[in-house]
Amino acid sequence: MQPFTITLTPRLYETDVMGHINNASIAAWFEVVRVRFLESLVDGGPAHGKNWTLASVHIDFRGETFYGEDVIASITEAKVGRTSLTLDCAMAQGERQTVEGRAVMVQWDPETRKPCAVDETLREKISGLG
Amino acid sequence: MQPFTITLTPRLYETDVMGHINNASIAAWFEVVRVRFLESLVDGGPAHGKNWTLASVHIDFRGETFYGEDVIASITEAKVGRTSLTLDCAMAQGERQTVEGRAVMVQWDPETRKPCAVDETLREKISGLG
Amino acid sequence: MQPFTITLTPRLYETDVMGHINNASIAAWFEVVRVRFLESLVDGGPAHGKNWTLASVHIDFRGETFYGEDVIASITEAKVGRTSLTLDCAMAQGERQTVEGRAVMVQWDPETRKPCAVDETLREKISGLG
Amino acid sequence: MQPFTITLTPRLYETDVMGHINNASIAAWFEVVRVRFLESLVDGGPAHGKNWTLASVHIDFRGETFYGEDVIASITEAKVGRTSLTLDCAMAQGERQTVEGRAVMVQWDPETRKPCAVDETLREKISGLG
Repeated sequence: MQPFTITLTPRLYETDVMGHINNASIAAWFEVVRVRFLESLVDGGPAHGKNWTLASVHIDFRGETFYGEDVIASITEAKVGRTSLTLDCAMAQGERQTVEGRAVMVQWDPETRKPCAVDETLREKISGLG
Repeated sequence: MQPFTITLTPRLYETDVMGHINNASIAAWFEVVRVRFLESLVDGGPAHGKNWTLASVHIDFRGETFYGEDVIASITEAKVGRTSLTLDCAMAQGERQTVEGRAVMVQWDPETRKPCAVDETLREKISGLG
Repeated sequence: MQPFTITLTPRLYETDVMGHINNASIAAWFEVVRVRFLESLVDGGPAHGKNWTLASVHIDFRGETFYGEDVIASITEAKVGRTSLTLDCAMAQGERQTVEGRAVMVQWDPETRKPCAVDETLREKISGLG
Repeated sequence: MQPFTITLTPRLYETDVMGHINNASIAAWFEVVRVRFLESLVDGGPAHGKNWTLASVHIDFRGETFYGEDVIASITEAKVGRTSLTLDCAMAQGERQTVEGRAVMVQWDPETRKPCAVDETLREKISGLG
């Protein structure tokens, strides 16, 4: 698929005493790009992000991320299951890749707090991304 | 009043590239001590913290806070108004005072999202603190 | 002065169980706009933000901030002292003002970790803002 | 090995609009337990946590984590490689398991910002944990 891409400007408070962006901030950025990707696919936008919950996340830190240079964060692959969605993510600062990640999200009924089948319209949109 | 005190162990991700605890983490700690103070006064505990919203916060940074030493955070003064509560806070690492702060909180009806009169039982408890 | 303005898109993890953006995230956003303002005034950019420390911060929460709508955050006033800088901040979602704040920052020698006189070039630039 | 265990009290700002603890806060807690585990093994304590960097992290969210109940976070397994350390983590609220995770950390020379061989004393201590 054509990667879905956003730009994140590192914030001073996201650094830590080791002089780089802390790993917990990167886990948080991964949420940002996941949610924006989902919102880009759904009419009615923002609220939709709330109907997914995270089943698992994996992050490989390929290089340090530093304050002072924008981060390009992309969803590079999206696969739909019955109730779940697997999203691959990459982040880079300039030519340097910093992060590779994979998240499994589950469509979620906010009333019952249980997984439910992925919405058919969304499934078609994601399948259509190639 | 007798200060209400909790101990916070600084976390690595709460530091920043300047080598100390970031100011936003300290604003977050102030919330922690405020909420625990309120929960200590109310039967039924945790949920109660949700019925207050923050009207204003002021923080004076008296000295840097560092990773590696526990922080003693206290509510040193509490004053009740009709719908509000003013809480004074102090934080220290060992003998060194690091933070003085004041927060004005408003009792809040979660349905209407509007201020409401401070609960009478709570008012008496806070007045009783002296 | 002409306000210095940035746009912040609220992030899902910046919300809390009360259904709005948590106050600690807003304290963090205030740091973002302060640092970007300083960086906009100084050649050589990002690193400069590290040469300031926060002496005090005051935030008035004028209204709740919600997920799903961009926040316009501005530095509306800047006053230079001998070693310090006072910055006024406003945030809004659409027509609705959400936050007013004031921060006092101190120019800071990272070696000695002590305040030092505000850099002359910066002083002139800030005075020139009107 | 005998699990290394700490207790974390969820904080209000760690919740999100979905009514549970946000996944990025859980990634941050995983750092807390990793670093405390390392500090427990090393004389001279806190500073040591800075000599490790994170190569990868995997988190399975087995159940939601809620505000209002303490979380028991444990390192359940530790394996040493030449330059790396693999740590398994579990978190629970009462009887309910909420999180399983694995982190690979790399011993790191803060001067060169490169991996280096795991300190021999630490290697022996970890091997001795069984």
